[in-house]
This record gives sequence, C-alpha cells and structure tokens, in this order.
Amino acid sequence: MRLTRKYRFSASHRLHAPQFGEAENRALYGKCNNPFGHGHNYEIAVTVGGPVEERSGRVVDLALLDGLVRREVIEPFDHRNLNEEVEAFRALVPTSENLGREVVRRLKQNWRAVFPAGGPRLECVAIAETGRNAFEVSAYEIE
Amino acid sequence: MRLTRKYRFSASHRLHAPQFGEAENRALYGKCNNPFGHGHNYEIAVTVGGPVEERSGRVVDLALLDGLVRREVIEPFDHRNLNEEVEAFRALVPTSENLGREVVRRLKQNWRAVFPAGGPRLECVAIAETGRNAFEVSAYEIE
Amino acid sequence: MRLTRKYRFSASHRLHAPQFGEAENRALYGKCNNPFGHGHNYEIAVTVGGPVEERSGRVVDLALLDGLVRREVIEPFDHRNLNEEVEAFRALVPTSENLGREVVRRLKQNWRAVFPAGGPRLECVAIAETGRNAFEVSAYEIE
Amino acid sequence: MRLTRKYRFSASHRLHAPQFGEAENRALYGKCNNPFGHGHNYEIAVTVGGPVEERSGRVVDLALLDGLVRREVIEPFDHRNLNEEVEAFRALVPTSENLGREVVRRLKQNWRAVFPAGGPRLECVAIAETGRNAFEVSAYEIE
Amino acid sequence: MRLTRKYRFSASHRLHAPQFGEAENRALYGKCNNPFGHGHNYEIAVTVGGPVEERSGRVVDLALLDGLVRREVIEPFDHRNLNEEVEAFRALVPTSENLGREVVRRLKQNWRAVFPAGGPRLECVAIAETGRNAFEVSAYEIE
Amino acid sequence: MRLTRKYRFSASHRLHAPQFGEAENRALYGKCNNPFGHGHNYEIAVTVGGPVEERSGRVVDLALLDGLVRREVIEPFDHRNLNEEVEAFRALVPTSENLGREVVRRLKQNWRAVFPAGGPRLECVAIAETGRNAFEVSAYEIE
Repeated sequence: MRLTRKYRFSASHRLHAPQFGEAENRALYGKCNNPFGHGHNYEIAVTVGGPVEERSGRVVDLALLDGLVRREVIEPFDHRNLNEEVEAFRALVPTSENLGREVVRRLKQNWRAVFPAGGPRLECVAIAETGRNAFEVSAYEIE
Repeated sequence: MRLTRKYRFSASHRLHAPQFGEAENRALYGKCNNPFGHGHNYEIAVTVGGPVEERSGRVVDLALLDGLVRREVIEPFDHRNLNEEVEAFRALVPTSENLGREVVRRLKQNWRAVFPAGGPRLECVAIAETGRNAFEVSAYEIE
Repeated sequence: MRLTRKYRFSASHRLHAPQFGEAENRALYGKCNNPFGHGHNYEIAVTVGGPVEERSGRVVDLALLDGLVRREVIEPFDHRNLNEEVEAFRALVPTSENLGREVVRRLKQNWRAVFPAGGPRLECVAIAETGRNAFEVSAYEIE
Repeated sequence: MRLTRKYRFSASHRLHAPQFGEAENRALYGKCNNPFGHGHNYEIAVTVGGPVEERSGRVVDLALLDGLVRREVIEPFDHRNLNEEVEAFRALVPTSENLGREVVRRLKQNWRAVFPAGGPRLECVAIAETGRNAFEVSAYEIE
Repeated sequence: MRLTRKYRFSASHRLHAPQFGEAENRALYGKCNNPFGHGHNYEIAVTVGGPVEERSGRVVDLALLDGLVRREVIEPFDHRNLNEEVEAFRALVPTSENLGREVVRRLKQNWRAVFPAGGPRLECVAIAETGRNAFEVSAYEIE
Repeated sequence: MRLTRKYRFSASHRLHAPQFGEAENRALYGKCNNPFGHGHNYEIAVTVGGPVEERSGRVVDLALLDGLVRREVIEPFDHRNLNEEVEAFRALVPTSENLGREVVRRLKQNWRAVFPAGGPRLECVAIAETGRNAFEVSAYEIE
C-alpha cells in the first residue's frame, strides 16, 4: 500500500549555475536567470509504501511523517531564498529537479531515526513549482 | 492502456479499534477517536487496465464499470456511518487504508460477474479522505 | 478592499428536525436523514472588508483572524458530530444554511473583542459541504 | 527522474465507428454518437523520463518539449473537429483511448528530430476529457 | 442567504454570426470560427437567493432546482452542437455571453412553475467555457 | 454582464516597510520579513462589466484585454523581485493588498487608450498569493 501526502511552502530562487558566465546563464535559463530572483508556491507530494500495520490499521504514523517533513524541508525552505539560505544551493542551481533530489536526500538521511526497519519506506517525492509541471524523483535513485 | 475514473461519496466514521481500551484508542487516533464520530467527503479513483477493444475503441465499457462501483461501493457507503452500517467495519477500524482494501475486495469479488476473462483488469484503487492524502491499494495485493 | 480566507474542517451530522416525526423527516431529507449520520469535509470562506491600514499595508491582521476562527469555529466543529456536540444544533437541524448562520453568529459575537471599532468588518461567510454547493450568509442579516 | 507537463486544447468530435451502421453506433456510444457532434476541453499530461543533465540541472529543455507538443498536437487538434479535420480519425473512432494513442504516435515519430539519443525519453501520455476520467498510454506500447 | 450550485455539460459550437460574411466572421472570431466547430466542457453556476425556510432549514429544495436545470439546460445542451441543435442559436452566435443569457431566460421562464411566489429567487448564472474565464449574467437584466 | 478572466505570474518579494526599523518590521511581518525575500505564484482575476455588443455577441474583446494586462502587469511583474524591480514598491511595502491596488491603478490609467467610452468597464481585481487567500480591490476605490 502506498500513501501520498502533500505539503506546501513558498520560496524565492534564481536559476544561475555558478560555474558559467552571465551570458551562458541567460541563454540557459532566460527570465528565470533574473538577478533579483523570483518565487513560487511549491507543492511537494511525499509517497510512502509499506504494509498496513494490523494493530492500528495505518500504513504510517502521520504525526511522525509530518514532523520529519516539517523539520527537514518546510522549516529550512519556507519563506526562504533558496540560493542564499539553503547550503546545498550555494554550488548547485536550484531547479525543481535539484530541489526534488535535495528533498529526497534530506528525508532518506533522517528516515531511520524516525521509522523503524520493517516499517514504512520512502518511495518517491514529486515537486510542483506551478500547477503545470510535476517533477518526480524515485527514492531509490538517490543516495 | 490504463483508465482511472473517479467516484465520490460522503460518510461518517470513528477510528476505534475494538480490541483495545478507551485510553489506547485515544492515544492511537487522537481527535479521530471522538466517540460521536466525524465525517468526510471521500473520493475514490479506480484504475482499470487492458487492451483497447478494436471494435469500440474503448478499454472498458463505462456503463458496466459505473454500475459495479455504484452497487458495491457507493450505495452501501454513501451517507452512511461506516462503523455501524458496513459489516466489514464492525471488527475492523475504518481507516482509509482499511477502507481502500475493502473497496478493492468488493470490486475483485464481483469483477468476473461483470467483465469477461481477457477483458479489462482491476489494477488499483486510490482513496482520498481530504485533498491532502491519497492511499493507493494495488489490486494484486488483495485476495 | 475585501479579503476572503478559507478554512476547513471535517464533521458528521444527521439532517433531522426534532419537531417532526420520523416519516416527515425522511420525506424532507432523504438519505441525509439516515439515523447513524454521515459526514463531510466542510470549507468555509470568511470575507472581511475594510480600509488598508497605511502603516502595515494590510487590511486585517491574519494572526488575529485565524485565532478567532480557530477558537470559535474550527475547534468546536472539527472532527465532531454537529448534532450531538454543538449546542446550537440540539434544537436546530444542521443544514449547511443553519451551519453558515451559526458561524456568522459566533464570529460577530466575538468580533469586537478581537478587532477595534473602525477596523476590519465581517462581511460574509460562505460554506461548502462538497465541491458543488456553496451557501453564502451576509453578516448583515444575522444578529 | 520523471517530469509530467500539462497542455490543454478544446475540440469537438462524434463517436461513430465507420465500419458499423447507425443503430449499432447508437447502441455503442449513446449520446456521444449524436450526429452533430459535441465537444470537450482536453487536458494532456506528457511524462518524460531521463537523467538530470549536470550542466543545466534540468531533465529536459522545456522550450523544445513545448515546441514539439505545440506543433504535433495542439496546433492540429485545438479548436478542431477531430473526425473531420484530423486524418487519423477519418477511419478510426476518436475515443479518448484512440486520441491518446495518436498523441503518443505523433510524439514518438518526431522525438528523435528534437531530442538526441541518450537524452530524455517519452514515457507516457495521459489524456482527460473531463475532470473524472484519465486515460494513460505507455509510450512503450505504441510503435 | 444565497446558494450557488454547479452543473456541467459538454457541447460543440462554432462562433459565426449569420448576418456577416466569411471574412468578417474570421476576423471577429479567429480559430473559434473554424467551420467544422470545436467544443468545450461548460460549467454553469446557478445562484439562488431567499430566506431560510424555518421548517426545513433550507433555502431551496435542491431536487426541484436540479430537476428544472436538468430539463431546461442540461438535456437540451449536453452532448449537442449548439448551433445546429438549439433553436436560439440558429440566428444568434453562441458565445458564452449569449449562452449565459439563454440559460437565464430558460430558467426565468419556467421558475414560477416550479417555485412558489415568496420562495427562492434566481439571482444570477455564471458560465465558464474553460477554467480561465467566467461570464456572469444577472437574472434582473434578462426578461 | 460581467466577465472574470484569470492571469498568473510568479514573483519574489520581501515584506518590509521602509519607514520602520528592523525590529518593528520583524514584529509586523514575521517570516515574510526575511531579508533574502521569498516568492509566490500569484493569480489575478480581472472583472470587466458592460453590455453585450450585439454585433459580436461579446462583452469585451479578449485580445485587447489580454494585451493590456500583459503589457501593464504580467511583463513588469513576472519572474521579478517586486521590491527591487517595480518602481511603486521602492517606497511601499508589497503586500497583496498594495499589489492589488497597483494592478488596478495600472489598468485604470491605460484603460481609455484601449477601450472606447461606452465600452467595457474595469470593475475589480482579485489577487491570490496562495490558494487560501484572495484580496479583492474595487476599481471604483482607486484613482
């Protein structure tokens, strides 16, 4: 059984790859390269898989999942400038693709401290910048 | 090819596991254990797979699928108290997880009476209690 | 300027007018009269009007509005059985119309304790039981 | 990593299989067989998979994807009568199933002219005629 | 108190004003003038106002409203070609504006046969052709 | 008759009133005062009123309205930092309330250059920062 649960945060960013010059960045990212940045309401959908625990009839304790996502993702990202305030994006361009991979990395690194072995597994994370696009990262592709 | 078709119903329930005492139920389910119950608008998404029938250009006859879902799920669950009025939940706590498994069980048990062998297969059912959560049950996990 | 802000809660209810007998209630409310009750995810939209405060650039302090709505509406109604657990619906049938009027009454009675004279006014409340219907109550019609 | 991107178009059609007579068509398609046709707002969701390109942090160049979908799908289908103005549906009934297969066929046939080998792959296309139904066609099932 | 209730139908149409020539029609309506027509999923929102009936706690009997809308609007428009199959659009271009006025006219002409004097009033109808646009017609502007 | 049409843009901002100090700004705006800014997907809904032009059956020429909104609002605001790149917000805190008033001001100032006297009127603009809040500004309140 799989559960998908949605969370939201708002952030600003600038698409700018530090290893390239101004002209190449502008060619790559267009208006998303605007030096003053711009922003979005992000929606992330976290998919967890596992057996239904017979005792509770639940696949995951939502209070534990919400606590983990809040501490590792919502608090560090919400109402932040991703380039300036999130360590991972000092050297990495904060596209939705890289943002999705960073969310998976943070959840995987802290998963075992919250959920026991044999319990629910992180399966994937989808991240939407706007209503038109969703980027899905499998948890099995990220270390 | 896969078709996903949505249906809705409204019901009330109380999360209360009959095998535990009041205190343990309250610890497990919090406000969802409120003795007077509470309710939701449920949305279920039924996914059917199969080949496109060349004659009709359709993967499934929607009138047959709608009839099956209405008879086995909507009529017995809509505007009902799940704990009191659905037999399966007399001994089983009506979480969304267990509700999803019950929907799959009802559709699988009656599938062959409606659809011929070699025709469309039930693949999975997703159930959402609110806009934030969806629980997905594969039809291959349920007998 | 007007601000409309949305809140959600889930509750169960039974449409049953205490002054009538069983047969008349069943004729009036059909499946909504089911004795075991049923439930919904309710969405309420609170509309506030007033001038933009030049100092803050805001029409209303959202923390104050959220605190008022949470204390007077969400906490007493969420995950509750409206007929059994909300005093107003012991003698009044909890249709969406009456529920909307009760929400307006609660907000109006407590408005002056939160917002100063000359500040934001409550204009109306809309309540939706499902995505298809919205009931709108003007704050000027309710004492 | 997978990206799903949505596009919309509006079109009219008539469900009528040219190889059958009037009576059989009416029995198969009911009101969708109305001789004057009817119409829908279609939403298609194109899913692309592939590695994140380290240089740009992107899985696909959206300008290239948008250009391909616009040229092969939106321009020929939008504000058109599918039976009369799209060659493929002269001899094939324009159900959503066949429409989804035609969209996959058009994107696959032109994919290599736009995206290099080793780049993003077309994974599937989902097509929704209304908010209730989505038909998903895997790109691996269509030549 | 006001109730807004939504209904949906799907139809095809061609924007073509019979009193003008081909060139002028093409200039006025662009791709919407395509001679083979195109189509939409329409959503109409009917707003009714009136006092809450103390006996039932309801502002309008939804079964009566649904019956009226189904008979006067959904059945004659759903899965139809508006230009060819709806009398009013033989001589009138079926823009959303004219469609909204026709819906109000049909509901007003039949209102008194369904709802008694002193009961609920038709206030307005909003019609959306797509998610981006809504046209609102006041019932007081139409005879 | 009234038409409401929706437009979207993405921008970043910082809620910071230039006339106050750091501490007061933090007290007023909380996390929205974060010095690095944050961002949103904004949706604006422009409501236009007027008679239906008998010739075209339309209340407003959408190409003219879209051109005006694009030039005066979308191009200067989309993918921008509102504090740094929009003149009006150098001295005015870019709350949604002030943003809504700026949109109305820009549309009113340029309305007569696009629409003739006796033609469609700007009635109001609603602006949503997220799905929960909408701020509505009447065009008659703004000079």
